[in-house]
Amino acid sequence: MKKFAVIVAGGSGSRMNSNIPKQFLLIKNRPLLFYTIDVFLKAYDDLEIILVLPEEHIGKGQEIIDAYFDTSRISICPGGRTRFHSVQNGLSLINVDSIIFVHDGVRCLVTKDLIERCYNKAKKWGSAIPVITSKDSVRLLTAEGHIALDRNTVKLVQTPQTFHSKVLLNAFKIDYKEKFTDEASVVEAFGIKVNLIEGEENNIKITTPGDMFIAEQIIKGISSI
Amino acid sequence: MKKFAVIVAGGSGSRMNSNIPKQFLLIKNRPLLFYTIDVFLKAYDDLEIILVLPEEHIGKGQEIIDAYFDTSRISICPGGRTRFHSVQNGLSLINVDSIIFVHDGVRCLVTKDLIERCYNKAKKWGSAIPVITSKDSVRLLTAEGHIALDRNTVKLVQTPQTFHSKVLLNAFKIDYKEKFTDEASVVEAFGIKVNLIEGEENNIKITTPGDMFIAEQIIKGISSI
Repeated sequence: MKKFAVIVAGGSGSRMNSNIPKQFLLIKNRPLLFYTIDVFLKAYDDLEIILVLPEEHIGKGQEIIDAYFDTSRISICPGGRTRFHSVQNGLSLINVDSIIFVHDGVRCLVTKDLIERCYNKAKKWGSAIPVITSKDSVRLLTAEGHIALDRNTVKLVQTPQTFHSKVLLNAFKIDYKEKFTDEASVVEAFGIKVNLIEGEENNIKITTPGDMFIAEQIIKGISSI
Repeated sequence: MKKFAVIVAGGSGSRMNSNIPKQFLLIKNRPLLFYTIDVFLKAYDDLEIILVLPEEHIGKGQEIIDAYFDTSRISICPGGRTRFHSVQNGLSLINVDSIIFVHDGVRCLVTKDLIERCYNKAKKWGSAIPVITSKDSVRLLTAEGHIALDRNTVKLVQTPQTFHSKVLLNAFKIDYKEKFTDEASVVEAFGIKVNLIEGEENNIKITTPGDMFIAEQIIKGISSI
């Protein structure tokens, strides 16, 4: 089945102590976003990428595509006010039955294996949301203070959040609500249950200089990882 | 006020693909546990360490202490069936009014700054539990499936969990319950609220080869971190 990856890269770089948005920071002389796009393109020959960027970064995004990739497989579209609106803009370019991956631009350590597992499960069940279990104890803030949660019942959610287009395109016709922090929450508000699958420890969101350093080492292919 | 750090190092190394328990793996030719002990000893001159180790690792622990530290400041005691029982064994050596840190042996990246903040808050309030906010969306497994939680209400709990001895020693007289996954949960079961403070992103639990690699780089003093 046809595949689309909507890659959302809206970050401003404020947590990186850098004026350069983190998706454009360099690892081995190539922008972080290069690695994210590259792994998706290599995963499936019939996969197309829709890259969602803030208006002011579209030129920079186009430069990366022109420099490194088959431009016929990648479209760029402008982001919106929130992640929901950015994803909605990206989805507006899709009008065929397909499996759709929605992925954070700064999760450049995602693997082909995880992408394939997401695809297979989403094709079978309609959705696949990769999650990992917290290694730490977990507390939930409440109106009265905070309570301990059973660590094994708490799942940290990664991307690519993956769906059949019939699920995702219809769900995103909904009106925006503040609680829509990811695609799974939109699909649930549409009344459809989402399926969790096992994510990957290394599939981290690059948000700090420490994360950037880790990503660099992993991409350089350090054998111990 | 007098200080004790109960350092719990009960891991078996199974997640590290190694026969050596992770607290004994080497970073810059010294065992991981060395760094954990060292930062506590350097934080306060009047701090004593109680190192809790599985019976079969006590010899190895003693070797580390003899090789690197002022042995008069460190006691070793055998661990128990669960973390609760291990900590209980360690606490049985304390009989003076004090501030007690309970710390994971494999969190060797804890800083003097965090230790001091924990001390100051525990002295003032009776307890200080360092936590950080999840960077990922969070889901909670329920009897019916799973639900999205507001990420900002979910706190990942670190150590040192720090308490006034009057709180902690009395709380640990309680009978063991399976839900006691950390010291905060024991103190709460005793009927006392615990206070959360801001933890540190880098204060990770070393449980995988990837974590070990990160710890190594940070300890080597990479300037970007």
